[in-house]
Formats: sequence, C-alpha cells, structure tokens
Amino acid sequence: MGKEISVGLIGHLFMGKAHSLGYKDVAMFFPDMELKPRMKMLVGLGEESVRKAAEQYGWESHGTDYKALIARDDIDLVDIATGNDTHREMALAAAAAGKHIFCEKPMAMNVAECKDMIAAVEKAGVKHCIDFNYRCVPAVALARKMIDDGLIGKIYHWRGVYLQDWIMDPKFPLVWRLIKEKAGSGPHGDLNAHLIDLARFLVGEITEVVGMMETFIKKRPLLGEAVGGLSATAQEEMGDVTVDDATLFLARFANGAVGSFEATRFAGGRRNGNRFEINGSEGSIAFNLERMNELEYYSRNDPAYAQGFRTIIVGESAHPYMGAWWPPGHIIGWQHTFVHQVYNLCNSIGRNQMPSPNFYDGLKCQQVLEAVEVSVENREWVKVEQ
Amino acid sequence: MGKEISVGLIGHLFMGKAHSLGYKDVAMFFPDMELKPRMKMLVGLGEESVRKAAEQYGWESHGTDYKALIARDDIDLVDIATGNDTHREMALAAAAAGKHIFCEKPMAMNVAECKDMIAAVEKAGVKHCIDFNYRCVPAVALARKMIDDGLIGKIYHWRGVYLQDWIMDPKFPLVWRLIKEKAGSGPHGDLNAHLIDLARFLVGEITEVVGMMETFIKKRPLLGEAVGGLSATAQEEMGDVTVDDATLFLARFANGAVGSFEATRFAGGRRNGNRFEINGSEGSIAFNLERMNELEYYSRNDPAYAQGFRTIIVGESAHPYMGAWWPPGHIIGWQHTFVHQVYNLCNSIGRNQMPSPNFYDGLKCQQVLEAVEVSVENREWVKVEQ
Amino acid sequence: MGKEISVGLIGHLFMGKAHSLGYKDVAMFFPDMELKPRMKMLVGLGEESVRKAAEQYGWESHGTDYKALIARDDIDLVDIATGNDTHREMALAAAAAGKHIFCEKPMAMNVAECKDMIAAVEKAGVKHCIDFNYRCVPAVALARKMIDDGLIGKIYHWRGVYLQDWIMDPKFPLVWRLIKEKAGSGPHGDLNAHLIDLARFLVGEITEVVGMMETFIKKRPLLGEAVGGLSATAQEEMGDVTVDDATLFLARFANGAVGSFEATRFAGGRRNGNRFEINGSEGSIAFNLERMNELEYYSRNDPAYAQGFRTIIVGESAHPYMGAWWPPGHIIGWQHTFVHQVYNLCNSIGRNQMPSPNFYDGLKCQQVLEAVEVSVENREWVKVEQ
Amino acid sequence: MGKEISVGLIGHLFMGKAHSLGYKDVAMFFPDMELKPRMKMLVGLGEESVRKAAEQYGWESHGTDYKALIARDDIDLVDIATGNDTHREMALAAAAAGKHIFCEKPMAMNVAECKDMIAAVEKAGVKHCIDFNYRCVPAVALARKMIDDGLIGKIYHWRGVYLQDWIMDPKFPLVWRLIKEKAGSGPHGDLNAHLIDLARFLVGEITEVVGMMETFIKKRPLLGEAVGGLSATAQEEMGDVTVDDATLFLARFANGAVGSFEATRFAGGRRNGNRFEINGSEGSIAFNLERMNELEYYSRNDPAYAQGFRTIIVGESAHPYMGAWWPPGHIIGWQHTFVHQVYNLCNSIGRNQMPSPNFYDGLKCQQVLEAVEVSVENREWVKVEQ
Repeated sequence: MGKEISVGLIGHLFMGKAHSLGYKDVAMFFPDMELKPRMKMLVGLGEESVRKAAEQYGWESHGTDYKALIARDDIDLVDIATGNDTHREMALAAAAAGKHIFCEKPMAMNVAECKDMIAAVEKAGVKHCIDFNYRCVPAVALARKMIDDGLIGKIYHWRGVYLQDWIMDPKFPLVWRLIKEKAGSGPHGDLNAHLIDLARFLVGEITEVVGMMETFIKKRPLLGEAVGGLSATAQEEMGDVTVDDATLFLARFANGAVGSFEATRFAGGRRNGNRFEINGSEGSIAFNLERMNELEYYSRNDPAYAQGFRTIIVGESAHPYMGAWWPPGHIIGWQHTFVHQVYNLCNSIGRNQMPSPNFYDGLKCQQVLEAVEVSVENREWVKVEQ
Repeated sequence: MGKEISVGLIGHLFMGKAHSLGYKDVAMFFPDMELKPRMKMLVGLGEESVRKAAEQYGWESHGTDYKALIARDDIDLVDIATGNDTHREMALAAAAAGKHIFCEKPMAMNVAECKDMIAAVEKAGVKHCIDFNYRCVPAVALARKMIDDGLIGKIYHWRGVYLQDWIMDPKFPLVWRLIKEKAGSGPHGDLNAHLIDLARFLVGEITEVVGMMETFIKKRPLLGEAVGGLSATAQEEMGDVTVDDATLFLARFANGAVGSFEATRFAGGRRNGNRFEINGSEGSIAFNLERMNELEYYSRNDPAYAQGFRTIIVGESAHPYMGAWWPPGHIIGWQHTFVHQVYNLCNSIGRNQMPSPNFYDGLKCQQVLEAVEVSVENREWVKVEQ
Repeated sequence: MGKEISVGLIGHLFMGKAHSLGYKDVAMFFPDMELKPRMKMLVGLGEESVRKAAEQYGWESHGTDYKALIARDDIDLVDIATGNDTHREMALAAAAAGKHIFCEKPMAMNVAECKDMIAAVEKAGVKHCIDFNYRCVPAVALARKMIDDGLIGKIYHWRGVYLQDWIMDPKFPLVWRLIKEKAGSGPHGDLNAHLIDLARFLVGEITEVVGMMETFIKKRPLLGEAVGGLSATAQEEMGDVTVDDATLFLARFANGAVGSFEATRFAGGRRNGNRFEINGSEGSIAFNLERMNELEYYSRNDPAYAQGFRTIIVGESAHPYMGAWWPPGHIIGWQHTFVHQVYNLCNSIGRNQMPSPNFYDGLKCQQVLEAVEVSVENREWVKVEQ
Repeated sequence: MGKEISVGLIGHLFMGKAHSLGYKDVAMFFPDMELKPRMKMLVGLGEESVRKAAEQYGWESHGTDYKALIARDDIDLVDIATGNDTHREMALAAAAAGKHIFCEKPMAMNVAECKDMIAAVEKAGVKHCIDFNYRCVPAVALARKMIDDGLIGKIYHWRGVYLQDWIMDPKFPLVWRLIKEKAGSGPHGDLNAHLIDLARFLVGEITEVVGMMETFIKKRPLLGEAVGGLSATAQEEMGDVTVDDATLFLARFANGAVGSFEATRFAGGRRNGNRFEINGSEGSIAFNLERMNELEYYSRNDPAYAQGFRTIIVGESAHPYMGAWWPPGHIIGWQHTFVHQVYNLCNSIGRNQMPSPNFYDGLKCQQVLEAVEVSVENREWVKVEQ
C-alpha cells in the first residue's frame, strides 16, 4: 500500500460527483501513482443531500461548512467544485490553512479574483491545480504529443467551437448559470474557458481578440424547486437572463496562428460538441468531445494518392493514458478525464512539482475571457494582458 | 479531330440514358482518347419515346428495330442496354454482323447463354465488353492499384453488401425486375453481379459458395401503366413475385481469402449501398458507392500511435481518371463511371486490344451467380465451374 | 444504507477487472438498487498477483482456491470470470453450495456442458446470469425498446460482424485463446457468441445455419512469459493454432428474418468492431461498439424529403440507463456495461426474479455456435436444436 | 424541338469548361426547359488553346476577341467566365449591346464596379445572373426549402467555413489568384463570396461585420510557364503575395442571427471544404460540399429518445432538381451545379423573369466583402451598406 494524500471536497453536485469518481477509481487503473487519494470529507449545502452523496460516492465523512473542512489537520488537498462566485473565498481560506488546492474552472469571476488567489497560493507555497479536464482526454493528449513531435508543423489555424443546446426551450427556467452574479457569464466562462485552455495547451498564447455576445432569449421563468444536475422546474413569473447565450470571438496567437472560438447553448442537436481543428504546415488534427475516443489526423507527408484524415481510435498502449485501461477499441467515458486529472495532480504533489494546468493557466484563461468582454463592450480588437 | 467509332445503342431507358451520357461527354474530359465515339443510332421500343430520347441524348438517328441497327454498315460498335432476356439474341446477331459489342450486366440469363455469346464473338473475332461500370469508379480503381502495389498484402477477407430499399412498400407493383422470366433473378443478378465482379477484380477467382435466397413479399399488385425508370403504377389484381428479394452467400477464393456477399432490396434507408471491405495482411480498404468519391484506407504500417482508417477524397491527379476532371474535392457523379467505361472501351478497340471487363468476365460472374442458385437448391456448398 | 449481497469473484485478469469495476461503481450511479454488492473475496491464480489485484480493485479478501470461496457461508453470489474450460466445474460447485451464479460467456465448452450447468442450477434453485454485457449498452437497450415499440416493424435482415485485428501479426504467440482445449474455439465462441446473443435479444430465435471457418495463420511461436491482458511474449519454437481465425455463417430466424454473422481477428484497423444492422418493414437500426454511445436509426415513416439515418447520441434521460449518468453528450465507456449488468443482476436477485440473460440464454447461444460447427464439418445447412 | 437561346462564352479555362458542361448537358436532363441553350461561340486567350477547347466542349465557333463575340447579332446571352478584373468592362460592353449577361462570381473587383454594372444592365433592360452555383446544389436548395417551410424555425446561428489547402506548399508559385491587382483578394473574394451568398440565401441580410486577414506565406516564386487549371510551375525569383491566405469574420444578421465565416487556403487535408451549419429554434442543418449529395438535418420535434442529426442522401424525386437525375443513391457531381444554374437561367429568360441570383445579389455580396476589408483596416466592427 503506497502513500496517501487526504482529500476534502467542497461541492457535491454535478462536478462534485465527477471529481469523486476520479478519486474513487484512479488507483484501480493507475496503481503505481505517487500518492493515492483518500476520500476524507465531502462538504456541500443541505445536510441530508450531502450525507447521501458522501455515502454514495464513498467519502469517509461529510459536512455543510467548508471552513470546518479546511480547519481539519488531516486534510492535505482541498478540492473546490462549487459555483464560480465562491472559488476566491474558498481558495484564500484553503491557502491560508496551507492546503494544496484543486479548483474547478473557470478559476474565478474575473481577473482580479484570479490574482488574489495566485497571491494567496504563492504566499502559502502550496500546490495548485485548475480542472481543465479536457487536457486529460487521451485524444487531446495525443494531439499535444503530435504537435510537440513536429507532426503538425508550424500552426496556421485554430478553429474551436463548443456547442450545446440544453437551454433552447424558452420555458427552461432561470437557473444559476443564467444569472450573471452567480455564474459570471454564460457559455463564455463555462465553455469558451475550455476552448481557450485547449487552444493555449495546443497552440500557444493568445495576444488579441475581437468578439460578440448575444442573448437570444432575454426573459425566462423563475426557477421553481431546485433539483440536482441540469434539470429544473419553472414558475410562472419571469426574470431577466443576464448572461450570454452565445459568445464568438476571433483571435491572434503569439506564434502567428489565427483562431476562431464559439460557445453557444443554442446549437440544436449538438449536446456536448466541444470540437476543434488545428491546421499546420505539416498536418492537421480534429477532435470532437462527443467522440472523445477518436482523433482525426491528416498528414501532408502521406503519399499523394493516400492522403486523407484518418480516424485514430485512441485506445492503444501507444497512446497517452490508454495503457492503463482496456484493449484497443474498448472505449473510455467522459468521467475518466477526472481519473486522469486526479492521477496527474496526485503525482505532481507526490513529486513536489507544480501541477499542470495550474492557477497561472487559470489566470491566463481568465485574461482572454475578460479581453473578449472588453472587446464586446468597445466593439473593437483588444490586446490580451500578458 | 481524331478518329471516330460509330456506335449504335439498343435500349433507351435507364441504362440507355446512362450509356448515352458516357458517349456524349467522354471527349470533353478525355480529348486524347484513341477513338471518339460518334452517336449514330438509338433503338428502343415505342417510336415516339425513342425519337424523343434520341433528340434529348444527342443521337443522330433512331429506330425501333434492333436488327436494322445491326444491319447498318456504318456502325462499328453495338451497345446492348436492354433487359437481360434479350442479350443473347442481340449479341449473336451483332457478332454475326461483325460488330464489336458492349453489353450490360448481367451478361445473360444463365451460363449456357453466356457460352453461346462467347462462341459467337470468338467466331466473329470482334471485341467485346461487359458493363461492370463500378470498376470505373476512381476509388475502386485506386483500390485495385493499392492492392497491385502490395499495400494491402495477402488478402484475408472480402465483405460485400449491395443494399437497396426501393421495393419495400408492399404496394410497389410487379415490374419486370420481379418476374423471373424477364429478369432471371432479383437482386442476385442485379446487385450480386456487381459485387461478384468487384470481388473478382480486387481479390481474385471464387472457387466455392453456399447461399440463401428469400422473397419477403410474395405477392404484389400487377403493373399498371408502365412508366420510365423505376417508378410504376399498380393495379388491384395481385401476381406472384418470382425472384429473390434478398440473396446472401459465403465464398472461398482461390487465393485463400474468405468472403461474404449480400444483395437485398429490403434494407430500409440504404438507397444504393454498394459497400465492400477488404482486409489483408498489410492493410484494409473500405468503399461505399453512396460516397463514391471516397476510399477508406488503413495501413498496418503506420506508426502505432497514428493508425486508423483514413478517408481519401479520390479527386487528386494522383488518382485514376481524376486528372481529367476538376480540382481536388470537386466531386464527380455516378454517371461518370460510364464516361470512364466508354473511355476504356474506345481506347481498347482503338488499340486493337480486348477490352476489360469482357465476355469472359461476364461468364465467370454468371458461373458464380449460378453456383449460388444451385447451392440454394441443394442447401450445401457448391464448387464454382472454373 | 440498503441491503447488501456478498460477492465472490473467481478470475482477476481482464474480465475479473471489468467485473470488479461493475461492483465497485454501481451504487455510485444507481444508489436505489435493490441489493448493493459487497466485494467479499477475489480468487485467482498466483498469490501475489491476486493480492495486488484485490487491493487495487477493492476486494475485502483474496485467495487462490475457488473452492474455498465457494465454501464460505458469507458469500451469496459467485461470479465466474475465468477461462471457458473451467465454467462447468465451478458452476456445478457453486450451485451445489446454493450460491447464485454470474458466469462469463461463452457459457461453457459445448452444449453438453451447458446442460449440466442448467441441471445443477435448477436442482439448487439458485439464480443464474450470463455476462452478455452488450445487452447493457444503452444504445442496444434503446434498439430493443424501439423494436418492442414497433418502430422497426417486421424484421427482414440481421447483419452482424465482430471485427478485431489483435493477432494479425504472425509473430503473435500461441496464447490460450488460440488453443482449442482451453478456448473451445477462436473468435467463434469469443465474438460470434456476442453477436448471436444480440441477434436473439433483438431479432429472435435462430432456426438454421450454414457456416465456414478459416485459420489463416496455422502455426505460431509458443508463448513465452505469460503476462496479463492481451499482451504476450513469444518463443522461437512454433506450435499449431487449433482454433478458427475467422468464422462466418448465414442464418434463418424463426420469425422469417435472414441473417449473416462474421467474427474475425484479421480485420486490420477494426479494433473492436462489434457492428450490426437490422432492417425492418418500418425502419432500420445500426450499431458499432467502437461508437457505443451512438445508435443509427432510420424511419421509413419520416417525410419523403427528410429521410435518412439519424445519429442518436444515446445520452438522454429518455434513454435506457442514461438518466443515472451525466448530462447529454457526456459519454460513458465500455466498462460501464458491467455497471449496468451488475445493476440488473442485483436487482433481479433482490426481487427474487430470474436475471436476464441467464443460463437458458447461454445454452441457446451455445446451440447456435455448435450448429455452425456441425455445418462447417458437413458443408451444409444445419437445424439449430430448439 | 423547343426554342433556343444562343450563348457566347468568354473564358475557356476552369470556369469556362464548367459553364460549357452546363450548356451541353442541361437539355439531356431537363428536356422541358423554356429555352434550350445553343453553344454559339467560345472566346478565350490563345487561338490554338481556344480552338481546341471549342471543339472539345462543343462550341460552334470560337475566337480570341470578346468584342467580336458581343458584336454578333445572333448571340442572346453573354457568359463572362474570366478573371475578376475583366468583369466590369465585359459586362458594360455586353449590356450596351443589349445582351443578357451571366457573370462569374465575385461580381467585380469592388462595390463601385458592381454599381457600374448594375447601372448598365438597368439601362439596357437586360437579364442578369451571377454564378453563385452552390445555391444549385440540391442539398442547399433542400436546406432553403426546409427553412422556408419553417422546419428550422427562428435562426440563431450561421457557422460557415470554406477550407482549401492547394497553396500550402511554400514553393507553389505566384499565380494570378495571389496577386491583388488581378484577383482583388484571396480566399476572401474567392471563397467567402460563396459563403456570404449562401448565408444571404439561407439566413438573410448581413448588417455588420468584424474580421481579420492573414497572409501566412508572404513571398513565393514567380510563375514559370503558365498551364491551365490550378497546376503551375515556378521560377527561382520570388515575388510578394498581395492577397490574404485566410480571412475570418463575425457577423450579425438583420433577423437577429449571429454568424461566423472563414475562408482559407491553409487547411491541410480540406480540399474543398465548403461547410456550413445553421441552428434554429426548431432544428438544425449542416452541409459539406465534399459530400454535396448529403444534408444533415436535426429536428427538435423528433421524440426525445430518437433525436439526432440524420444524413439525408439528397437523391429522391422529393428533393429539388433530383427528379431529373438517377434513382436514389446514384449521386451527382460538382459540375452538375452548373447544369442546374443554366437550367434556372434559361428558364428565367424564357419566362421573361429576372434570374436569381442576379447582379443585385452580386452587389450585396460585394458590400459584405468590402465591409470586412474596412473592418480589417480599422480593427473594429463595420456596418454593411444596405
């Protein structure tokens, strides 16, 4: 039995469950990791609801006060999987208590909050990590490896869209994700944050942007009885939607590439269409999260009569992470990105290395998000703070 | 202006139109062919209908008596694009008159008829060709080239299906294709004939078969007023369907490969699904006529992390036939297989070479078709006459 | 905390791990199941290897003697996830001890063994279940529901292939799966067993078959040091491959449908291509395990201008099992079929119902497998024992 | 034999050949059109080259002076299929001579030229048409019909890219398309012009834009011996590329929809990837020119368990134009868009109606193109002249 790291998780709903799964299953597939996570405590709102979740997910204890969690001496890592408007406060408290921190994306409500959080973790000297879990999709990791190996060459184009459709019904109620005070923004912070991180991971830093935002349905029924996950019930009374329904922007990268980004919740039929394509001087890569076990790859160096995008089923032991799973063609699921994320995180802490992605990545992502918002306001190109 | 070959075409309906298009357009894309076809005469049933067709397709003259066509001294090539039950008679007459012959598939009603036709063309010393037009799909020609070049290696598997659905409606009437005396068989002769020829073209000779036939809808309304093409009207009175609705068979090839074949008109949603896959020791190939400008290709010799079926858009000048057409990605259509077929045919005659595929291929295809029928009758494996 | 069922698992390698995952995670996603599995004991060969696996997968205890497991009073359910040649012996022992049984497929080495096992469980009055886990793919369950709801209508065609390629390298050694005494057969029992069960699940009983088997590579290097999973090392000495590399057969169903089946390990590029298509009078369905979160569906009742196969991303709460998982488009993985299988099994036992599929399904599958083998021997159609 | 319209074509290279094919084959598939085109005269540069082309394509006469063509009394329609920098001059001359005009896209070098041309045709009272041939893809016409019929509902999103890769090789020489004086712009005028027209056709008028342009390879070898089509040879001396290699822009539509556009010649592996997706309140549509016989369609009104994008093979008689072609699944090619365009054009003239799209559409497209160029210059959003 190897060494352990004790984890306390704040948030027991959608993301809390996904993170829990990561801690629960990681050692089953990666038994030789540096530190095995021990699921010490789960904190959330609603005693009964949290109790059930703790039992269901396999947490040793539970509570409703995150400060009590942070106060415990026997917890090494605090995982913040709550709403965006709480990240700063929790991270500051955790850092002050000397805890390592794993935080959901987007990192915070704005750049200023991100900087506060970085100041706190730097002062505390703790490890920090942001949950851009799509870096941990094996196909994405393979894309990165191909780029690093020169198979794509000099990158010309990034073309990223994150298409969803879960609020297209005008009767869908005004959940927290549609209220600016709670969510910060709509699909911009929720989905473009992922695209921006993937673009930074695969292409490089973004230097300037110009964008547009639109709210197609401006009033919705107030929320009735809240229920877990994304389902919800509605009242008759209406309220204002205060976030974007769709945000698009164009970008330039430091390395000369050009890019387009789009996040929307109004693309009917696209349930979770996190898609990107990269074109470089030597080859191209395309990815779609709905078929996350596949990577499309084109090489300009194939013989002229045999060129074309090939569909790589990312399931070989030659592929990142996949040696730990099943034989080729036995696909993994969305939740397994969290297994990989936890694996990376626990290994980094165990080796006394800074995890990746970390708060610096969270900040840079936020700076791009915010530059887009300024651009929308000013109707012009805006430089991204570097 | 190069030398010409004068053509007389018998049959002015579906296949007659497709062949006409081939003659009409070939010199536009292949101006350097050996002999340019001259569209001398079109023969069909129904004076008014044939007259219109001749004008529409660009034939210089027309008639309703195929013997008059064959009797003309100024016709070099007789193209037989009529029902299966007329091929033998017409071919014998054309050969006796010393005409080269281009004949629709399947070659005849049975092996005995095919042998009569071969005896006739051999005696006359004329050129002969069978219209297995799918050999002329550039993607299929590319598949053949890849196999010849060793990219697929030793072939293990042929997996061919030809799926259609145009008679699924029980009210669809008893057209000639559903009557054994006229059509010989159902999808077996109509569609499996194509698959068998493709399998012979790409894999090699078939040595033994075992099969099954089924007629799902055994009675249909008698045909009302006949109309061109595949559309038809129905009467109230019912008649017996005397051909197969679906025929499946397994096969062994002389080179050790194993194969499966299926032709059906009851695969809902598959309009023209002529599909095959070939697996060999070095690679695999897959094709679907509904996406005939594409070839799927897998190489076992790609690096382990980058293996997968690649979708080749067969439109490069590096691809068979395609240098004559448009820039890459500007696709060609089904009818252009006839342009290629005519191109090959006129070149072969111009060079005094036997065209390919020819009556010997037609016979071998018929021998396999007939072996399957015997197998169905006897409920056991049957050797194919070699 | 609900009621529990104590499980003992025999087999700690590939399938043992998959089953373990099912027990471990099921209550996280299906907290309201009738009986929650408790992972009591893991048995396998090799003390050290089993010890590690037990720790890794979360079993409370472990051992190397399956009889000791069966002898324990505190175990309710015996899970047999070992080689095919051991199923009968273990099942008989477990039944004699009054244990419920969950057994890997194929059920046994032959029909006679299956009948012994059924006699044993009937005598003991215990519940029994066979691990045809692909019934538990949500897309497959949806296909079944669509068929039950009449959306496909009268079924005409079943077209199933299970394509793999993991032994194409002639240097791949003679592992147990290639030795008749241990495996019973090659892809026939391994992969056609799955197809047969799916065909029975979705279409109905098979009445007669005709088939062929081929072993493309007849000698292989003897196995060197055995390693877990499918990887293996080779010696210089060669031995005979005594199972099929590929088995194809045609079939008739009791309801009038016709079918084709193919299982091979020589389809280069197809890693885990468990694919089927069903065509009926009202619609069609197509499935590919490599994209197991999708179901292709065609309806003949769509408007004429809008007909086509639609790609359903099976991830809605309206889809079988999927309400328990993540939001739409957040896909699940291959291993989650075992979660569903365990869920069904524990619910059935908890409700004192016979699980499905069970030993009767295992027997029927074996009867078809065996009929194919007789057909190959006799080169003719063979009736399946009903 | 119906009435005829006599055509004179200027331009005998790529587009000249495509237009010729349209005139040559249209009456074969649409025999009942109002006016049958008669191919009177072909004009191009290079006597020998034009003579050959005229013979090959089937023109009755040929010449090298377009003014001679326009001067002929026996020509009704002048087709301008030359470089962008000649359209205005030729159109003005043709209009002055009272000829109907069919002009390649983009209409001219800039908005001012377009307005000159409109003034000329209005003064002359002739019919005019612009060759936005992709409106004539049956799948695109079907998309329009679906939108008109309300199947897509209120449109939220347009997402269009036109991806090519034919100049990615840095050694590809400085052909006329890469020189601003001759081409006006790069893929912006060449490819975005198509996207803009399709967006206007399907979504509506564009009101404001913001864009970016990039030239990835700024110097190229000067052109050696010019050859037809897109192939070319290079010299050692280098020259400046003065057009864009890629142009992206965001847009707002008058009806509230938001859109993104991208045209590039640096998307490796995308040979002719003219793709768009439209999302509306009731459904979505997606198209890819490389699979131009297909339309992807999603309906939000399908039952919850059976929603998904369906692939419509646009080949039914229920689909626009396709009743004139072959049975379902027998696909048409890229060149057949010109057959449809000629069909529409000749019918409009025959019925004394203004063709669609016409010079007003050409102007509106140019206004959007130009607004994007201003936006690139000013780095801000720009209103489109209405």
